[in-house]
Amino acid sequence: MAKKRKIRMGMVGGGRGAFIGNVHRMAAAMDGQIELVCGAFSSSPKKSKLSGADLFLPAKRVYNSFEEMILKEKELPENERMDFVSIVTPNHVHFAPAKMALENGFHVVCDKPITFDIKEAKELQKLVKKKKLLFALTHNYTGYPMVKEARSIIRKNKLGKIRKVIVEYPQGWLSTFLEKSNQKQAAWRTDPKKSGLAGAMGDIGTHAENLAEYITGLQITELCADLNTVVKGRKLDDDGTVLLRYNNGASGILMASQICAGEENNLRIRIYGEKGGLDWNQQEPNTLILKWQNKTAELIRTGVGNLSKEANAHSRIPAGHPEGYLEAFANIYRNFAFTLQSILQNKKPSDLYLDFPTVEDGVRGMKFITKVIEASKSKKKWIKF
Amino acid sequence: MAKKRKIRMGMVGGGRGAFIGNVHRMAAAMDGQIELVCGAFSSSPKKSKLSGADLFLPAKRVYNSFEEMILKEKELPENERMDFVSIVTPNHVHFAPAKMALENGFHVVCDKPITFDIKEAKELQKLVKKKKLLFALTHNYTGYPMVKEARSIIRKNKLGKIRKVIVEYPQGWLSTFLEKSNQKQAAWRTDPKKSGLAGAMGDIGTHAENLAEYITGLQITELCADLNTVVKGRKLDDDGTVLLRYNNGASGILMASQICAGEENNLRIRIYGEKGGLDWNQQEPNTLILKWQNKTAELIRTGVGNLSKEANAHSRIPAGHPEGYLEAFANIYRNFAFTLQSILQNKKPSDLYLDFPTVEDGVRGMKFITKVIEASKSKKKWIKF
Amino acid sequence: MAKKRKIRMGMVGGGRGAFIGNVHRMAAAMDGQIELVCGAFSSSPKKSKLSGADLFLPAKRVYNSFEEMILKEKELPENERMDFVSIVTPNHVHFAPAKMALENGFHVVCDKPITFDIKEAKELQKLVKKKKLLFALTHNYTGYPMVKEARSIIRKNKLGKIRKVIVEYPQGWLSTFLEKSNQKQAAWRTDPKKSGLAGAMGDIGTHAENLAEYITGLQITELCADLNTVVKGRKLDDDGTVLLRYNNGASGILMASQICAGEENNLRIRIYGEKGGLDWNQQEPNTLILKWQNKTAELIRTGVGNLSKEANAHSRIPAGHPEGYLEAFANIYRNFAFTLQSILQNKKPSDLYLDFPTVEDGVRGMKFITKVIEASKSKKKWIKF
Amino acid sequence: MAKKRKIRMGMVGGGRGAFIGNVHRMAAAMDGQIELVCGAFSSSPKKSKLSGADLFLPAKRVYNSFEEMILKEKELPENERMDFVSIVTPNHVHFAPAKMALENGFHVVCDKPITFDIKEAKELQKLVKKKKLLFALTHNYTGYPMVKEARSIIRKNKLGKIRKVIVEYPQGWLSTFLEKSNQKQAAWRTDPKKSGLAGAMGDIGTHAENLAEYITGLQITELCADLNTVVKGRKLDDDGTVLLRYNNGASGILMASQICAGEENNLRIRIYGEKGGLDWNQQEPNTLILKWQNKTAELIRTGVGNLSKEANAHSRIPAGHPEGYLEAFANIYRNFAFTLQSILQNKKPSDLYLDFPTVEDGVRGMKFITKVIEASKSKKKWIKF
Repeated sequence: MAKKRKIRMGMVGGGRGAFIGNVHRMAAAMDGQIELVCGAFSSSPKKSKLSGADLFLPAKRVYNSFEEMILKEKELPENERMDFVSIVTPNHVHFAPAKMALENGFHVVCDKPITFDIKEAKELQKLVKKKKLLFALTHNYTGYPMVKEARSIIRKNKLGKIRKVIVEYPQGWLSTFLEKSNQKQAAWRTDPKKSGLAGAMGDIGTHAENLAEYITGLQITELCADLNTVVKGRKLDDDGTVLLRYNNGASGILMASQICAGEENNLRIRIYGEKGGLDWNQQEPNTLILKWQNKTAELIRTGVGNLSKEANAHSRIPAGHPEGYLEAFANIYRNFAFTLQSILQNKKPSDLYLDFPTVEDGVRGMKFITKVIEASKSKKKWIKF
Repeated sequence: MAKKRKIRMGMVGGGRGAFIGNVHRMAAAMDGQIELVCGAFSSSPKKSKLSGADLFLPAKRVYNSFEEMILKEKELPENERMDFVSIVTPNHVHFAPAKMALENGFHVVCDKPITFDIKEAKELQKLVKKKKLLFALTHNYTGYPMVKEARSIIRKNKLGKIRKVIVEYPQGWLSTFLEKSNQKQAAWRTDPKKSGLAGAMGDIGTHAENLAEYITGLQITELCADLNTVVKGRKLDDDGTVLLRYNNGASGILMASQICAGEENNLRIRIYGEKGGLDWNQQEPNTLILKWQNKTAELIRTGVGNLSKEANAHSRIPAGHPEGYLEAFANIYRNFAFTLQSILQNKKPSDLYLDFPTVEDGVRGMKFITKVIEASKSKKKWIKF
Repeated sequence: MAKKRKIRMGMVGGGRGAFIGNVHRMAAAMDGQIELVCGAFSSSPKKSKLSGADLFLPAKRVYNSFEEMILKEKELPENERMDFVSIVTPNHVHFAPAKMALENGFHVVCDKPITFDIKEAKELQKLVKKKKLLFALTHNYTGYPMVKEARSIIRKNKLGKIRKVIVEYPQGWLSTFLEKSNQKQAAWRTDPKKSGLAGAMGDIGTHAENLAEYITGLQITELCADLNTVVKGRKLDDDGTVLLRYNNGASGILMASQICAGEENNLRIRIYGEKGGLDWNQQEPNTLILKWQNKTAELIRTGVGNLSKEANAHSRIPAGHPEGYLEAFANIYRNFAFTLQSILQNKKPSDLYLDFPTVEDGVRGMKFITKVIEASKSKKKWIKF
Repeated sequence: MAKKRKIRMGMVGGGRGAFIGNVHRMAAAMDGQIELVCGAFSSSPKKSKLSGADLFLPAKRVYNSFEEMILKEKELPENERMDFVSIVTPNHVHFAPAKMALENGFHVVCDKPITFDIKEAKELQKLVKKKKLLFALTHNYTGYPMVKEARSIIRKNKLGKIRKVIVEYPQGWLSTFLEKSNQKQAAWRTDPKKSGLAGAMGDIGTHAENLAEYITGLQITELCADLNTVVKGRKLDDDGTVLLRYNNGASGILMASQICAGEENNLRIRIYGEKGGLDWNQQEPNTLILKWQNKTAELIRTGVGNLSKEANAHSRIPAGHPEGYLEAFANIYRNFAFTLQSILQNKKPSDLYLDFPTVEDGVRGMKFITKVIEASKSKKKWIKF
């Protein structure tokens, strides 16, 4: 049996000026399970080098391209080369490095949405299956302890049959024509050549869709969509509502908007069953409110009382010390690392940590985008999922 | 000029065991402007008598029927007879007493929705116009000081052009088949012969519709509706979502549900414009949150700082002493009484108090119900309003 | 047995420009149990007349002085004359009308603190006992449904032995030297000739003291006080903290301040026992948070679930329709009226309604003021209560 | 000029079963500036070895004692040996390793309170001065962005002269006699031989004291203390309140308790000046409420609007993505690392990062403990600080 060691990460994207790359690095570093050993941080080799130096990497492990990184790392001795690739580029640059990494035997962590279109997603799905490699998709909001608790409550059927799901993700940062000023985040996210079919629905609508299915265990069967492009000149949707039908008969409302001026990242989900409902808000993530019909409501808090083992396994510090976005994000990386560690040790991974979004979630997200766009253009009210 | 005196109210409905009748009485009594002088409190003469005695009314002013009340009061001397009729019966018993009161020269306050169907509503509209009498509809949520402030903020264009309206009214009290047990409130509200075309959409959806139009000054032009009857055996909708288009191009979401188990009366409205958004929740009604794109948010509170004259005119006590549902309800009655007092004095009513829902709002609410039902049954996505 | 009828109220004080008088009238009117029949609304006979006319009282029942009112009303036939006097004047004008009313057989409702000094309070105490009349003191914050629930929870020993009480009442309205500008409320409250020994401690500290003893059932045995006069030129304390020892060994902190700039009426009480704690805030009065050691917290709400009969008896409308300050105030008047009604009917008053602050609470409050002032001046840490 | 590199950390304490050691490691790792290179993780050499292996350290860098670590690391080449020692042991084991580290030329990060008693603290103070080494004390609550913003607001005199400070830190975890069961955290914290003079006041009271002085820039000049040992059999205080006088004349209340059953880590500070007040709560750390006398309150949020450069420099991710306890803790480590990096580069450290608690704060904290205990035992109300 191999000795336990830190899992070695190579990164694609996330160079100077990027936003999500640094989030991935902080999330990966937090628990001391993962070490950043190499990277191709930018499509500009110069920028990649500078970024690697910022990160204190040896120059020889900072590559000019992801292709170079994958090929060169493969040639390194097993006890040195990276174990997995973390892909933190814009959507249109997810597929190629993911595919190449998998084909060369590297596990993958990839930012969401998984690919530019559903065709790419399905190809990755096949490849993951064929190669028997790990693939984690960073739908990070599922990493919060109170999201785990919510899921556990519903799995234990405490709310009775689920009847209604309301999930909303209002942001305000695209209230103006920000892409005009070449703001980097705005520019690619509103560009159909980089972002894909959808704007807000792809960027944050998929988070909402994934969160709702993760917590409820339900699947969308029909939808009715109303997408808007509110800001003049914008090329993709920046606001939209989707009415949903789930496979148990429940109805749903999914709202994703980037023109709700003044909103930060106000992701919230409410789920109502026959006996009660729950309410969770990402901006105050350590509280989960459980409301009961004809009984006193409960204020569930990370770390307090008799929580599910899933909630407790995804919390690091005593109650009342808030754990936030980075900790939830780190839970994805930590679970991925624990699972990979087990595999490297030839052990069966623990179910508790085999809990991160996968390539299947990625395919489902791409299907959601595809169907929402179709439904939005249709004059018919309901479209099958 | 007549001497100022208390305005005299006669009540139809609201006998023993009723809910909303007592609310109307408390609201009417609070400011000392209105005196309950007579009533026909029940379709059962015996119950009407007992109820009148509970209210310390002289037996001769407690009538067996609204017809009797209207006719007998008309015969009383002008300085004694009631000035207006307050109608607090179930929906199907609004029209007849309202019509008869108006025809006999009495002003009217009526609970919402205005009538059983839109035909009745339009007939009342004509009659009010013809008789030049006052008609107030108790869409009480518009009476809160922070609703007045929200309206004033939007009228002053502080948010810029309105882009999105989200109004929701979740309740949980009809999560079970409560009407089976003859619970009085549930029984008539879920009975199409008493409630009208719609269940939840009529009972609380119209409040949401009215509140959104009142605050924004916008009007619905198109809608897409998804209504559900979630509880088995129920005859009317108990849950639904309506997507909206407003006359300035803004989009909207209106949700009204009575099966959100654990919810009380969680009416909330969020309105986003180009520059910022506002957020108001009926369960904590003295706070109005104003969020700005790229500026610190504001926490507006009843009575604090430089509020609009409209907000201040609808608050009674110093800041931090919460004013609630009854005070907001009382604002409708007080404004109605002040306006009627002016008319009795042959004075021009103050614009500040000429601020209560009217028969026009009632007609609009009935049209909303009609159109939502039509849209709900349609396979087309959008229906013109 | 006499027929039930409205209880008849005469008012002392509360004329044009007054604040608390109108609060008393709204509170008394709300439930339809009490009728304002006469008043001496001002020490200025002219102002009294004008105020009476505003209130639609017949001129003959509007008096030039409380002495006149008491004597003339006494001469009226029993079925016409007032039943009780409501005293809403500044502190230094509580004693004389209360004494005279009691001596002439009238029941009394009096604003707090009960008198100018403890000597007067004790004299009223004796008189009430001797005359066997009702005396209610409007410590209105005890009227909230969630305060009743908190009290019930502690009486049922759900928290275990009480260990710590934290009660605070920060206001900001006296942050500036407001009395200089003759603002009426500020002027008398900061004037030792009208207010008594204490400023903030008398005005709002007594509310805090009363609330804590009411909910916990404990009594103060020792105290350590730090009073400040923060605003230059002010004659009485405007800020202070009192450390407390209760008769069961619990410790307490009582803070009352009128110079917490930006605060409204942020009265809050937290009580911790061996097993858990509770938290109630007057500005959101329909929520009571119950926190447990090693168990999920509870979010108790007015009207939701299986509340105590005391909480339910002091709520008027369905859950989620906020009841506020006036409703809590009205609970004092309603309980007083129900109790008086029982007495007039020669019935035993219900324990549920025999729940309003009395002359005993008034004496206790005056003792609190006296002892806090003594402790504040002492160099010794602890003073016996 | 030396090349930039990761700062190398050696750890004392924090082995298996410890709590705060892991917090330090996560905080140090998060920003990729610091690398754990060695440790003496336990007084048990065996446990130290196992802990080092858990952390993937090479066996030769896992030491049997801090003495061994300091001596052996000193002998390593400069480009390999640790730069600083992080001390995460119980209070009574702070002084010896800190002293030895400083004497051997290593910088120090130390958990709070700095030492067992004030004598030790002063000795460290002298040594730091003499050796010109960095010393950071992990009063981590000062690391939150909104604490930085609060401090900036007060430095800019936006609130006017400060008049009142209320800082409270209620916990409930010591509500029972937990030390009896050998719960590790409880055992040493309640043991006067390990914890020092004070219990709750030392453990969390010093956090409150430090936070208040950090934000306000004021210093305590007098105090009045009431400490309690509520749980039977406990040897140190588990609850207490301290009344304060600050050097500008402001008054203060500091409450620290570990028997507030049901409380988590509810550290909250409110500060009132002539013009307004601010309110910050550690459990929802990304919100700072600013209340104004006669103006609308502000809801300041991490990352939103025009914040101080200090607040922005201590936040990592876009607004609405909550940053919590670990991020605040990491700010101490990151600032320490940035400052040390500058020193290693022979550059002047940036003022923005020269912002972490120092040995001076440590001495002040020990003085606070000493004076609180003295005041608590005194019968006199006020004691000079």
